[in-house]
Amino acid sequence: MTDAEPDRETTVGELSEGQILRGILDRLPPSRALVGPGDDAAVLAVPDGRVVATTDTLVHGPDFRLAWSSPFDLGFKAGAVNLADVAAMGARPIALLVALAMPDTTTLAFVRGFADGLAAACAELAPDCAVEGGDLTVSDTLTIAVTALGSLDGRDPVRRSGARVGDGVHVIGELGEAARGLDVLFQRFVDADGAPVALTDEARAALDPADAKALSRQLAPRPPLAEALRAAASGATAMMDISDGLALDATRLADASGVTIAIDSTALGDDPARALGGGEDHGFLVTFPPNAETLGRRIGSVQQRGAAAIEVDGAAWTGRAGWDPYRDWDAGRG
Amino acid sequence: MTDAEPDRETTVGELSEGQILRGILDRLPPSRALVGPGDDAAVLAVPDGRVVATTDTLVHGPDFRLAWSSPFDLGFKAGAVNLADVAAMGARPIALLVALAMPDTTTLAFVRGFADGLAAACAELAPDCAVEGGDLTVSDTLTIAVTALGSLDGRDPVRRSGARVGDGVHVIGELGEAARGLDVLFQRFVDADGAPVALTDEARAALDPADAKALSRQLAPRPPLAEALRAAASGATAMMDISDGLALDATRLADASGVTIAIDSTALGDDPARALGGGEDHGFLVTFPPNAETLGRRIGSVQQRGAAAIEVDGAAWTGRAGWDPYRDWDAGRG
Repeated sequence: MTDAEPDRETTVGELSEGQILRGILDRLPPSRALVGPGDDAAVLAVPDGRVVATTDTLVHGPDFRLAWSSPFDLGFKAGAVNLADVAAMGARPIALLVALAMPDTTTLAFVRGFADGLAAACAELAPDCAVEGGDLTVSDTLTIAVTALGSLDGRDPVRRSGARVGDGVHVIGELGEAARGLDVLFQRFVDADGAPVALTDEARAALDPADAKALSRQLAPRPPLAEALRAAASGATAMMDISDGLALDATRLADASGVTIAIDSTALGDDPARALGGGEDHGFLVTFPPNAETLGRRIGSVQQRGAAAIEVDGAAWTGRAGWDPYRDWDAGRG
Repeated sequence: MTDAEPDRETTVGELSEGQILRGILDRLPPSRALVGPGDDAAVLAVPDGRVVATTDTLVHGPDFRLAWSSPFDLGFKAGAVNLADVAAMGARPIALLVALAMPDTTTLAFVRGFADGLAAACAELAPDCAVEGGDLTVSDTLTIAVTALGSLDGRDPVRRSGARVGDGVHVIGELGEAARGLDVLFQRFVDADGAPVALTDEARAALDPADAKALSRQLAPRPPLAEALRAAASGATAMMDISDGLALDATRLADASGVTIAIDSTALGDDPARALGGGEDHGFLVTFPPNAETLGRRIGSVQQRGAAAIEVDGAAWTGRAGWDPYRDWDAGRG
């Protein structure tokens, strides 16, 4: 532990837990809780007597490469993917709890950039949300476990199981952009052995605009939370975060609701296969009853349950179903 | 992914996320939530409009060794330490969210044992609590990130900052037992190079009863949650979980309250230094006003703030302050 004022290159192994924590808390929005960080637990107000809670983890290797993700992007993504799960229930995010397990070689610059990204995700996507608690641990593997909490503000939660025959199926947000961004990374930012090489600002600037946008969506997704909350208020019968690819997530919604979702591929943009199979977009799949004021774009309709959970252009979908970390990770890091 | 019925030795790398999840959910208590596992997020009832939330992570290496901790013990400990933080606010635990990042070589037997330990911690320590959500990820480093949520049931939260001059200082639970158990492990269950060797049932049975009890407290702590909740109801002015050693945690409580805590070492059992410096007991440090009905045993009193945050037998404490993962971990696993 050093007593000198830590600089950017100081590693967390040279700092006390309290010093690391100060490097984080100083950069986050102020607590909005009844009891914020610093006690055994936070206490949060949820005036309607119900709290929405979800947790999601980013692990170095299967979920990100440090050669590609800046600390800011990682903080932003860790916040955004959890905020999206809260909004997918129709709830307004009110708090994050952030457990950070870091190698002792992690620099204070990383910690500060990560905190800035978390703060930006809250400011941009969920302005009522602050980081109200967390945990710091040392680990060989950089691991970011975030819990997000939300308030329904008197509304009913919008579940996966509420889709009804005759509802329209809509997507709020983009499809396939994050997967396209991942392709850009694995095709252009690896060396001859397939190991990731650093994604510099210069290299990003040299990409064509569509690839650059896709890359940015992969590294720091911007789920349209405000629209998801408007969809809930507008009478959405079912809603979920599209995180593992439209085909797999629509299958889950169809199974939960006991229906078949019929998708029109012409509504899926210029690469329907990528839109169906590519994960990590963190848009929202929503069903609306016939007379509701809808949001997003219509991609199909809810039908009586048939042989398949989803149909694309009238046929069962036989393409890639989605991402499974236990099958699809190549064990690389970088 | 295998289609055959998985057996105990099947690894999670051979299974889908859904198959792993079924191996966990089947062994847990039934959901008590408004919306339980299976949607984007859980929805929990907290009738008084406030929710208590905390998160704590166990990482392979700094926090446990697989040669020493059974899967059951790990599940129990991961639950217990988080439940204790909720109870330390005076709240009744109502839900856990469990994020599990596992190497793909982890066996289904491990996953099942872990789930059994989590279930036992809920049943024994917090019978209103169930696992209402979670996340599975692959990782090189086994990492268990748990979030616990609780309900105050109309009571005020018991904070660290509420201790007042004249209050009695009490400890509910044991002091130094978990540290003694850790000493037993590092002194008797390592090889000539200091690497951990397997802790067999036979080896545990051969320990003298006091060492065996200390070992069991280290591997699967039993925080006295019911007594902590009774202390809150009985008018405790401040309370916290003793996780990093009495000396360090009493310093935190004294600093938060702006007081000095005067400790009488004769109240600390037969090894006061271990009671003061040893972490992971997960008992509760509580201050009671003079006329309250107290719980636990009195170890000292709250005094006006002096030069030191804590005094032991009238002098500042100069012994070991407590555990800091970024300074104290030797980078070993096993």
